[in-house]
Amino acid sequence: MSITLRRDVRAGDPVVVRDITESTGFFYTEEVGTAVELVEERLAKGEASGYSFVFADDGGRTIGYACFGPIACTKVSFDLYWIAVHADGRGKGLGTILLDESERLIREAGGRRIYAETSSRPLYEPTRAFYLARGYREEARLAEFYGPGDAKVIYVKEV
Amino acid sequence: MSITLRRDVRAGDPVVVRDITESTGFFYTEEVGTAVELVEERLAKGEASGYSFVFADDGGRTIGYACFGPIACTKVSFDLYWIAVHADGRGKGLGTILLDESERLIREAGGRRIYAETSSRPLYEPTRAFYLARGYREEARLAEFYGPGDAKVIYVKEV
Repeated sequence: MSITLRRDVRAGDPVVVRDITESTGFFYTEEVGTAVELVEERLAKGEASGYSFVFADDGGRTIGYACFGPIACTKVSFDLYWIAVHADGRGKGLGTILLDESERLIREAGGRRIYAETSSRPLYEPTRAFYLARGYREEARLAEFYGPGDAKVIYVKEV
Repeated sequence: MSITLRRDVRAGDPVVVRDITESTGFFYTEEVGTAVELVEERLAKGEASGYSFVFADDGGRTIGYACFGPIACTKVSFDLYWIAVHADGRGKGLGTILLDESERLIREAGGRRIYAETSSRPLYEPTRAFYLARGYREEARLAEFYGPGDAKVIYVKEV
């Protein structure tokens, strides 16, 4: 595996993002749709969309990506909207590579606080452990946010 | 004062919303711009924008408004994005009228949890008191979210 990171967003990336997010088994259909919408908005509006991307290409195939951007009306806060690795590419540290590169780019863009949100459902235990192991701390939980018994967990990291 | 509430969004409303939000002294220029963008997006995309509005008209003049919508990827959670009354119309209970009507419409649309966010700065003490007095409870604080010493306070109410 020889990974190349790229920031430019291409016409084929909405399909790529759909394929990656669907393969993970972590996202509802509606969430996959939202992930794809952010890529489409980026293609339509460019940087003005507020969404930046990092894609991980393994040869000709894109097997993971992250999406982040500045939070409106804040000074130095950024949201990490999505980070996902294709089921075929898991267990190889790609999530960490994508997160490290996202943090570097956020810092370069003036960001100093990164927020990541996920669900409290058991399915997301690995996701929560992933953030905690990489210097994020849990700052808040919004009970029942996503649905019954399904809280939103908000992580933050200063960079 | 004879107040009429309306839900339809008109071509002149971006200017109206700019005028109202600027008059309050509560919002930064960037925030006023964001408030106006939501109206423009509603005019461009209709209900598909995800933004619903209630405007309070006093005769021919619009003197307050609220903006809310469902939160993507949640079952019954709604965001109250904006609620503002023109400086000329304050102290007459218009905020409460707008909030009551927003809550009614959210419930009608299937919403059961309403989230409202504001800043921890002293300027917003009346805003925080407004929510607390109307059945909202503080669920979380994100320290330094907006800027140094400026936390995001998240309120929630079940409806």
